Amino acid sequence: MAKSFTKMLRAPDSPVKLSKIPSDAHPGVDSKADALRKLPKFAGRLADLQERLFAQAHGGTKPARQNLLLVLQGMDTSGKGGTVKHVAGVMDPGGLRINSFKAPTKEELAHDFLWRIRKALPAPGMVGVFDRSHYEDVLIVRVRDLVPRDRWELRYGLINEFEQELADQGTTVVKCFLHISRDTQKKRLLARLDDPTKLWKYNTNDVAERKLWPAYQEAYESVLNLTSTETAPWYVIPADRKWYRNYAITRLLVETLERIDPQWPPADYDIETEKKRVLAS
Amino acid sequence: MAKSFTKMLRAPDSPVKLSKIPSDAHPGVDSKADALRKLPKFAGRLADLQERLFAQAHGGTKPARQNLLLVLQGMDTSGKGGTVKHVAGVMDPGGLRINSFKAPTKEELAHDFLWRIRKALPAPGMVGVFDRSHYEDVLIVRVRDLVPRDRWELRYGLINEFEQELADQGTTVVKCFLHISRDTQKKRLLARLDDPTKLWKYNTNDVAERKLWPAYQEAYESVLNLTSTETAPWYVIPADRKWYRNYAITRLLVETLERIDPQWPPADYDIETEKKRVLAS
Repeated sequence: MAKSFTKMLRAPDSPVKLSKIPSDAHPGVDSKADALRKLPKFAGRLADLQERLFAQAHGGTKPARQNLLLVLQGMDTSGKGGTVKHVAGVMDPGGLRINSFKAPTKEELAHDFLWRIRKALPAPGMVGVFDRSHYEDVLIVRVRDLVPRDRWELRYGLINEFEQELADQGTTVVKCFLHISRDTQKKRLLARLDDPTKLWKYNTNDVAERKLWPAYQEAYESVLNLTSTETAPWYVIPADRKWYRNYAITRLLVETLERIDPQWPPADYDIETEKKRVLAS
Repeated sequence: MAKSFTKMLRAPDSPVKLSKIPSDAHPGVDSKADALRKLPKFAGRLADLQERLFAQAHGGTKPARQNLLLVLQGMDTSGKGGTVKHVAGVMDPGGLRINSFKAPTKEELAHDFLWRIRKALPAPGMVGVFDRSHYEDVLIVRVRDLVPRDRWELRYGLINEFEQELADQGTTVVKCFLHISRDTQKKRLLARLDDPTKLWKYNTNDVAERKLWPAYQEAYESVLNLTSTETAPWYVIPADRKWYRNYAITRLLVETLERIDPQWPPADYDIETEKKRVLAS
């Protein structure tokens, strides 16, 4: 019996202490070799399920409205971009919508914090990926005091309502916190500074953010405690090992899509009639 | 000396007669086996060049503005979606922006025909892909008489000006006409009707469009004759063989990106200082 990654990696119901959750574990798979051996099968399954999800929204007499939204959050170097490249990268890009959220523009700031998020939501049948998301509005915004406490405090509830609304309209939200150790971040930042093809990924602001590590971990704990719902649960992905991160998120997406169980839509026309029409044309 | 696909596949300067261009040829590669053997090398090169293009727009003291836009046009079943899946699919989806243009909405129709196109343009560093494009406004619109002739006739010039403007702002436009025979289309439509996983791709309107084949070929010839410019040339891709289509477009993109020659951006900070800061943090 295959292990359920959605069960295994789901954020606990009891108050989360991130320091108690190992970031270098690899639950559900024995070793890197084991993961690399199994990955192609699940990657193929993911690509197949994505195509079905897309198909059922684009055919039949009553196209389905379902879609999927993968939310990636984590500290700098935790592997959000790597997940887009290696996990989303196995799917058909025609059925993907990737959004990377940066510091909001002046126009975005003039609207409520969900305004830019709503504009980026995937259409029916699509797999959306948010590299950072509306959660930044209770993470950096909280840690850096960018809005008053009484404003960001309200946002946890607003986010839960928003995600419930998404679920009601057919969107399954899969939220992954890429959990790395402070030491892993140090190694990865130094690796960027040692590699001419990675210098552009380093930002001098990264060290200042890093110094706020404890405040960020606390802000992430609040996110996990306040916004992991039955409707849109958080998964805590041990992400010190890139191979495990990729494998685990692939497995999560496959399980989630299998639960959606998208079906090839039936013809909304008479097949034999159409064959004759094509043959005669 | 490797063959230049950009030279080989470029639409001829003399008036194009599509019936004279074989759709089942495979210039530049001996056989399917040969193409499949060589493809991984060029696919890897494409992914690498895409990452450099993205990097140079996101780092250094003066981020580059360059990007690339692949325009895919062709009759139904010519393989536009397959090209997105198999050619764009080897690149990092985080650096891709795919747009599939359908019949325009009421709002889009209320604006000039380039309005929705401009909104979909790739940002600096991105590879954009248009599955159908502004060319529909001189193809189906012309064949189906959707606007008066004096309006669509002006559009060839407007398109050339638009693409010149894109070039001036750093966008390299690669336009591929996926050239299939009428018989290949018939086979592919019948194959869709025979495969439960492809029924959703068939549309009862496809036969009506197919009956207008000669008018469409003529409209494509006008496109190739009037909008293949030094700035934004058209390539005619023999597309009866899917393996050739994928191989040829991969080679075209690699050559085009090699000409852009994107560079890993230098650090806009002092590397040794930053190493010390990270180590001390």
